[in-house]
Amino acid sequence: MTDASPATKSFLRALKGETVTPPPVWLMRQAGRYLPEYRAVRATVKGFLDLCYSPEKATEVTLQPLRRYGFDAAILFSDILVVPDALGQAVSFREGEGPSLKPIRSSKDLDALTLEGFQDRLQPVFQTVERLHRDIPSTTALIGFAGAPWTVATYMVEGSGSKDFVQTKIMAYGRPDLFQRLIDLLVQATGDYLITQIDHGAEAIQLFDSWAGVLPEDAFARWVIEPTRRLVERIKSERPGIPVIGFPRGAGALYQPYVDRTGIDGVSLDTGIPLDWAVGSLQSKVTLQGNLDPVMVVAGGPALDAAVDRILEVCTKGPFIFNLGHGILPNTPPENVARLIDRVRSRR
Amino acid sequence: MTDASPATKSFLRALKGETVTPPPVWLMRQAGRYLPEYRAVRATVKGFLDLCYSPEKATEVTLQPLRRYGFDAAILFSDILVVPDALGQAVSFREGEGPSLKPIRSSKDLDALTLEGFQDRLQPVFQTVERLHRDIPSTTALIGFAGAPWTVATYMVEGSGSKDFVQTKIMAYGRPDLFQRLIDLLVQATGDYLITQIDHGAEAIQLFDSWAGVLPEDAFARWVIEPTRRLVERIKSERPGIPVIGFPRGAGALYQPYVDRTGIDGVSLDTGIPLDWAVGSLQSKVTLQGNLDPVMVVAGGPALDAAVDRILEVCTKGPFIFNLGHGILPNTPPENVARLIDRVRSRR
Repeated sequence: MTDASPATKSFLRALKGETVTPPPVWLMRQAGRYLPEYRAVRATVKGFLDLCYSPEKATEVTLQPLRRYGFDAAILFSDILVVPDALGQAVSFREGEGPSLKPIRSSKDLDALTLEGFQDRLQPVFQTVERLHRDIPSTTALIGFAGAPWTVATYMVEGSGSKDFVQTKIMAYGRPDLFQRLIDLLVQATGDYLITQIDHGAEAIQLFDSWAGVLPEDAFARWVIEPTRRLVERIKSERPGIPVIGFPRGAGALYQPYVDRTGIDGVSLDTGIPLDWAVGSLQSKVTLQGNLDPVMVVAGGPALDAAVDRILEVCTKGPFIFNLGHGILPNTPPENVARLIDRVRSRR
Repeated sequence: MTDASPATKSFLRALKGETVTPPPVWLMRQAGRYLPEYRAVRATVKGFLDLCYSPEKATEVTLQPLRRYGFDAAILFSDILVVPDALGQAVSFREGEGPSLKPIRSSKDLDALTLEGFQDRLQPVFQTVERLHRDIPSTTALIGFAGAPWTVATYMVEGSGSKDFVQTKIMAYGRPDLFQRLIDLLVQATGDYLITQIDHGAEAIQLFDSWAGVLPEDAFARWVIEPTRRLVERIKSERPGIPVIGFPRGAGALYQPYVDRTGIDGVSLDTGIPLDWAVGSLQSKVTLQGNLDPVMVVAGGPALDAAVDRILEVCTKGPFIFNLGHGILPNTPPENVARLIDRVRSRR
């Protein structure tokens, strides 16, 4: 890319605490199945991870939504489960069934994971970041990301997606020393992974903690806040100036201690977070990002306009990035995304 | 039952705002698959609803956990989906797959539902309430219940359980007049159903809004708070003195307006609600109920003891009922329930 000063990128300015009008906008999972050009690329590979591990194709799908909509940020196309995969816990995705891993349930299972060769196995991802750094428009910010340790650990322990997270919680509650070892490994690996993404061109980091909302407050403090705090501290210390957004989805009132204690620069709000509360309690400390219900973009029409307007009305008096409260849905009509972007950009 | 004055029942005293020591205790889904005697009765019927519609068997499974643990309250054994079933939208439960209904997607689908004969079809449930009123111990309170309109509507529109509630939200966002008709029907039907439960002996009501947490705040106000407020208003007006507990699971910071605006007497807290916040923000207005993580009861041991102690420590300075934050899990060892009850009851 043309090396425009990062300061000219509205997304990064907002993350530094500036109130930007109109606010920068991007959408979680903006590179995805709702776009026919994405589905065309997806059809050329067998497994989902094959797409994540192909620098050429992962770059292409990351760029696709930028061409259509000119988003203010692009997020590396990858998956949070490349970390366990690269640690030696092979991950597969069965069509329509979600991820499958051989579950970690014992000290012995944990011993089989290794940081040796971890970064080597992630080379394709770093190459994607490098290509994106070169190819995205000069006003578009490049976001690197990882799953937060708690959320990645749930997949590693359950061996799949889950509803109740019973096995993970049983380990966290009943064998906290063992679970701490897993979390410590993930803090180390995820830190290495993110630092290297930054070294290849990522200008900001988002930590996805999709299952943060299922823990009681003391477990939340130990398994969500503390590992996130350690990761943020390392990034701030080793790569100063790179902002971090945290997304503790479903955390409800626990967003407050999360914001107060992790050191993040921005917080991504899920759909259920009341905006007046977020503005009153969080926006003086961090940049807000969110939180349109993805179903609103499926519904479209005046209901979409009204929902966009309401978010803009409440959130744009301080630092704010427009986004969804969860990933865009596969059945979203692409023209509704255009309508949404126009609406946000017409904000004065 | 011996007609002990309701005032002697610790559960009802707590709901009237009294700080009871030790606090009354019951567990959501205390009649359930973790008990071998429940599984034995369940094996004698084909479908799950057959159990709900057998007064003799539904009474028996409601009483089983009282015999083991002497809980301070019993909740009618039934299911929230008997309401759509009795409105004419046939419900079936496939083993291990959850409920299945012919989905409501249009005005015509909605026209096919009817209040005519609704209460007649629910006679077996009312007979169960009557038997329980007669048979439960004199110090045990009898709780009637229903699903709150929003949550019941999600099953009616999706036609099954759901992860994203896309169809329901598309109707609520895109065709609010149609969705309002469905909600209005449910407010009417659910009100009739609960009033009749009270007339057969229910001494308190719990409204389960299991999917309250998936809505943005303005939709939450319209589809969760307002229908609940109307139901509570009707119960207070037609059957004064019967307390109502609301359970807007997953509502996070939206618990606050829910408590402020629905008129409920008690609020059931999910596992993720921070207790200091609940005590500070809610307990001066309503009785708190909750919120032990059900997985803690699976884990057992010192972790369970510590979690119970922490809840008792924070919540028992005001009106409080000990419970879980979600239903008890099928793989819970029954002896862990005994350990939990002993721990709560040893509170001085």
